[in-house]
Amino acid sequence: MDNGQKTTDRQRVALVIQYLGTHFHGWQRQGRGERTVQSEIETAIETVLKRRVPVIAAGRTDAGVHAAGQVAHFEATGKIPASRWATVLNSRLPKDILILTSVAVPDTWHARFSASMRRYRYTIYTDKQANLFVRPFAWHYYYQPLDASLIQEALSPLIGKHHLAAFRRAGADRKHSWVEVQGASCGRSGPFIYIEVQANGFLYGMMRLLVGLLVSVGDKGRSVSEFTQIWKAERRDLVKYAAPPQGLCLLRVGYPDSPFRSEVWENSQPKLVLSPNYSSSRMH
Amino acid sequence: MDNGQKTTDRQRVALVIQYLGTHFHGWQRQGRGERTVQSEIETAIETVLKRRVPVIAAGRTDAGVHAAGQVAHFEATGKIPASRWATVLNSRLPKDILILTSVAVPDTWHARFSASMRRYRYTIYTDKQANLFVRPFAWHYYYQPLDASLIQEALSPLIGKHHLAAFRRAGADRKHSWVEVQGASCGRSGPFIYIEVQANGFLYGMMRLLVGLLVSVGDKGRSVSEFTQIWKAERRDLVKYAAPPQGLCLLRVGYPDSPFRSEVWENSQPKLVLSPNYSSSRMH
Repeated sequence: MDNGQKTTDRQRVALVIQYLGTHFHGWQRQGRGERTVQSEIETAIETVLKRRVPVIAAGRTDAGVHAAGQVAHFEATGKIPASRWATVLNSRLPKDILILTSVAVPDTWHARFSASMRRYRYTIYTDKQANLFVRPFAWHYYYQPLDASLIQEALSPLIGKHHLAAFRRAGADRKHSWVEVQGASCGRSGPFIYIEVQANGFLYGMMRLLVGLLVSVGDKGRSVSEFTQIWKAERRDLVKYAAPPQGLCLLRVGYPDSPFRSEVWENSQPKLVLSPNYSSSRMH
Repeated sequence: MDNGQKTTDRQRVALVIQYLGTHFHGWQRQGRGERTVQSEIETAIETVLKRRVPVIAAGRTDAGVHAAGQVAHFEATGKIPASRWATVLNSRLPKDILILTSVAVPDTWHARFSASMRRYRYTIYTDKQANLFVRPFAWHYYYQPLDASLIQEALSPLIGKHHLAAFRRAGADRKHSWVEVQGASCGRSGPFIYIEVQANGFLYGMMRLLVGLLVSVGDKGRSVSEFTQIWKAERRDLVKYAAPPQGLCLLRVGYPDSPFRSEVWENSQPKLVLSPNYSSSRMH
C-alpha cells in the first residue's frame, strides 16, 4: 500500500519556459556558481520538494540567448498537481524566468529526445542609430547594408536533410551532424531583419554560425553559391564568425502528440517593431 | 584673455536620452542614494568635467516609467565638442541608459521651459497568459475584456485646452492645471492596446491617472459620458487608480525650431508585437 501511494505521487512534469538570456550563463548548470536557467529552476523546485532533482531541457541555449518557449521536464513527487507547478515555481523564480504552463507527461516522454522540431529566430537591427529597447534582443549590424532577399536565397537549399558539420561548434555530445531543416526564411520589417529556422534538431552553435555566414551573403561579401559550396563541402574552417547571442531566441519546441495546448504558443513569440511617428497633423 | 577663453569653452548641451525605467527610482535625483537617471548622468558628466553640474530634463518620469526620447540639457565646459558628448557619456553610463544624440543649444534654450509638446504612450497587454518579454513594458490587464473604441471615444473630448485637475497628483510645483491636449488616440494590435497622448505639457501623474480611469471605460464599468463628467467637474476624488508605471513610455519631446535632426526620432519608438505562428505547412 505504501509503495502504491509512492507510485501515485511520482509524476513526470513538462514545463514551457520563457527566459531573458541577458543575465544568464546559458541554460546549463555549470557547477561553478554561475547563474544559469537550469540551476535557478532546480533551486526553485528544491525549495518545494526539499531535494534536488535535475531539470532536462529540449535544447541547451548559450549565454545571452533568449527563449520564448523552451521545454523541459523533471520528476515531481508529492501532492502538487502537475498543472499547479507553473504557479508554484513562478512565485519562487527570479523575474527573468517565467513558466508558461506545466503538464503531466508519461514516464517515457523526454523533453529532448521526444522533440521532433525546434524553431529559432535571429533578429538583426540595421539602423545606424542604436536603440536601448532593441539592444538586448538583436545584433546591431549597420556596417554594410543587408539584402534580406539574398539571405532568403541562401537559406532555401538548406531545407531538407543535410550533413551540416560546417555549422557545428566543437564540444557537443551529439554523434553525427545530420539535420533535417523543415523551414527557413528571412524577412525584413523596417530596420529589422528576421531569420527563422525550424529543424528536427540543431547542432551545437549551429544557428549563430549559420547567421554569421548568412550576413556575409546579405552584405555581398560572398555570393549565394559560395555560401552553398561552403556548407556542402563542410568547410567549417571557412565559417569563422558566430553571430552574437543576444539576437537569438528559441521560439518553440514541437512534439508528436504534443502534451501542451496550442494556445500556449499563440502569444509567446514577441517581436520588437519600431512604430512610425503619427502622420496626423495633430500628432506631429 | 583668460576670461575670453572661459566664455568660449562654456556651452549648453542638449541630449536626447533613452532609458529603461525598470531599475530606476525615476528621473529625478533623490539625495537618498537611490538610483535615478538624473544622478547616473550627472555622475557620468562628473567623471569628465571633475565637477558636478545639474542635468535638467523636459519632464520628470516616475519610478518604472520608460523613455524612448527624453530630452535634457546641462552646462558643459572644456574642449569636448557638443556632438561628441553622446559618445563620451555612453561609454560611462550603465546599460539601461543610452544618449541618442547631443547638440549645442543657445544659453536661452531650456529642455523643460522651451518644450512645446510631449508625447506619451501607454501599453496594455490583454492576453490572459503572461509573457516575460512584454512584462517590463506593459500593464497586464486581463480581468475584463477592454474595448479600445470606447477608450478612443472617451479620449476625443480631451483634445483642446482644458483644466485637468482631475488627473493631477499632489506634489507638483506647477502653478495651474491647464493642459492643451494636441492629440489622443487608442488602438488595438492583437493582444496589445496602445493609448497615446500628446500635449503641450503633462500634470504630475496625469498619464497614469488618465489611463487608470480610461480602463474603467474600456471594461464598461463606467460610461463615456460619466468619464467626461468626472474630468470636466474636476472630480479628482473619483479618479482613484493610477495605472502601473511600467506600461508608460515618454516617446518624444518637441520644441519650436527643434535643435535635433528629425532622424533622431525615426526609429526611437519601439513597440512590442507578438508574431503569429507560421501558417506554412513546413513551419507548423
